[in-house]
Amino acid sequence: MSSIMRFGVSIDSQLMKKFDSLIGRKGYATRSEAIRDMIRDTLVEQEWESGKRETVGTITLVYNHHTRELEHALTDMQHKSFHQIISTLHVHLDAHNCLEVLVVKGGSREIKKIADRLIGTRGVKHGKLTMTTTGKELV
Amino acid sequence: MSSIMRFGVSIDSQLMKKFDSLIGRKGYATRSEAIRDMIRDTLVEQEWESGKRETVGTITLVYNHHTRELEHALTDMQHKSFHQIISTLHVHLDAHNCLEVLVVKGGSREIKKIADRLIGTRGVKHGKLTMTTTGKELV
Amino acid sequence: MSSIMRFGVSIDSQLMKKFDSLIGRKGYATRSEAIRDMIRDTLVEQEWESGKRETVGTITLVYNHHTRELEHALTDMQHKSFHQIISTLHVHLDAHNCLEVLVVKGGSREIKKIADRLIGTRGVKHGKLTMTTTGKELV
Amino acid sequence: MSSIMRFGVSIDSQLMKKFDSLIGRKGYATRSEAIRDMIRDTLVEQEWESGKRETVGTITLVYNHHTRELEHALTDMQHKSFHQIISTLHVHLDAHNCLEVLVVKGGSREIKKIADRLIGTRGVKHGKLTMTTTGKELV
Repeated sequence: MSSIMRFGVSIDSQLMKKFDSLIGRKGYATRSEAIRDMIRDTLVEQEWESGKRETVGTITLVYNHHTRELEHALTDMQHKSFHQIISTLHVHLDAHNCLEVLVVKGGSREIKKIADRLIGTRGVKHGKLTMTTTGKELV
Repeated sequence: MSSIMRFGVSIDSQLMKKFDSLIGRKGYATRSEAIRDMIRDTLVEQEWESGKRETVGTITLVYNHHTRELEHALTDMQHKSFHQIISTLHVHLDAHNCLEVLVVKGGSREIKKIADRLIGTRGVKHGKLTMTTTGKELV
Repeated sequence: MSSIMRFGVSIDSQLMKKFDSLIGRKGYATRSEAIRDMIRDTLVEQEWESGKRETVGTITLVYNHHTRELEHALTDMQHKSFHQIISTLHVHLDAHNCLEVLVVKGGSREIKKIADRLIGTRGVKHGKLTMTTTGKELV
Repeated sequence: MSSIMRFGVSIDSQLMKKFDSLIGRKGYATRSEAIRDMIRDTLVEQEWESGKRETVGTITLVYNHHTRELEHALTDMQHKSFHQIISTLHVHLDAHNCLEVLVVKGGSREIKKIADRLIGTRGVKHGKLTMTTTGKELV
């Protein structure tokens, strides 16, 4: 069962002042929320390093839709990984450039492979894999 | 005017062998495509460091939609930055967890601020800003 | 004046369990020490982003000492920045490869420039700038 | 046997102009040298991800030498890993703060463990592991 607990952090007053000003700038309402975010961030990193567990990522691609066969190739690849690719958002940045974000769920190694293939496709100008989480194990 | 040029890279045969095997694993069709991707990656990093130019990012948020007032707060914040937030994709990860990806366009400092505010909101379990590009200046 | 303070963090019991196991693996003796490290880490990142304050970095270089004129070029460059370069450690990795670590103190932009020059020198196989701190403002 | 080879990169003239101005700022003498550095950088990243091969890292620590028992603890830990720790450089940053850089050689997982232990020690204000290479397989 999950319940709310409390622990104390002892800290030098000067370090606390700097921390308070930092989380103020970042828009945190409380120190607890900022600390929990730091903890969850580190846990998500570990999840991805372990390589085994199911996790979630987003793949961001910017490409020129005039590139011959590119859209077809991207769609094709995405359908081959349809088990992992949950959903896709497409934005027309200007007359030439498109941005596509894919939400992907699967093992971290599998997700990295899908990202590599998409980012490596000719005509994709820029691509990035963002490692996030299913949220299941992070309260 | 833009045109295709060619330049030569001299490289030790052993280093080239390693490079070829790496880009093979990543799914690149040609060395040129892999090299262009490395160059564009570095240029995008520089674009974000300079802080001045208009650029594009995606903000990925994972949160528990049961958190009281969270969805309302997120929607509210997004409307305050509606000039920058182009589009949003929402995915129901499970009965409790949602993933939201926002596509944001603006100055890099401005985008960072919007990301900080959203990620710092109570109830957001994990958040990440992904720095990409308008594609305009990257051929 | 600096003094030790204490603040409380409220956290879900499941998240705390995961955090405790993480910091156990990393060898932290107490939660406070782990939290303080996360805080200081974030503050050091900010210090480097601001670009103005005096800070400290280390530059790690791996190179082949047989490369003609390389050692001379590196020494020469280091002497031009002798105000910033405090000290240097040289390790003979094998018959061909050397590792050199430089400790550098100065404005963050200045340190980045010195690192770029050294890493970009012909014959340097791998180079990295590590951003740390004078420690002065971090208690 | 190792020999010098050459391959051609086809690239849009605008992208090449941007690339040339970037490597000019970074102090590269030729495009080839910049390209080789990008390739070696990616290969070193892969080396560390694979986790198996022997590699080299530097661990940078900033600490207050007045912290009771800290120097003793650090020396003690270093001696337990003396097989991996090749050499150490110590710099007195000011009356209170010390910087220590350790050059470490071993499997990447092993090096990460040593870094975690040292960085997690009470009194160490800031610590960073820098992942580099033996240079052996990078020509």
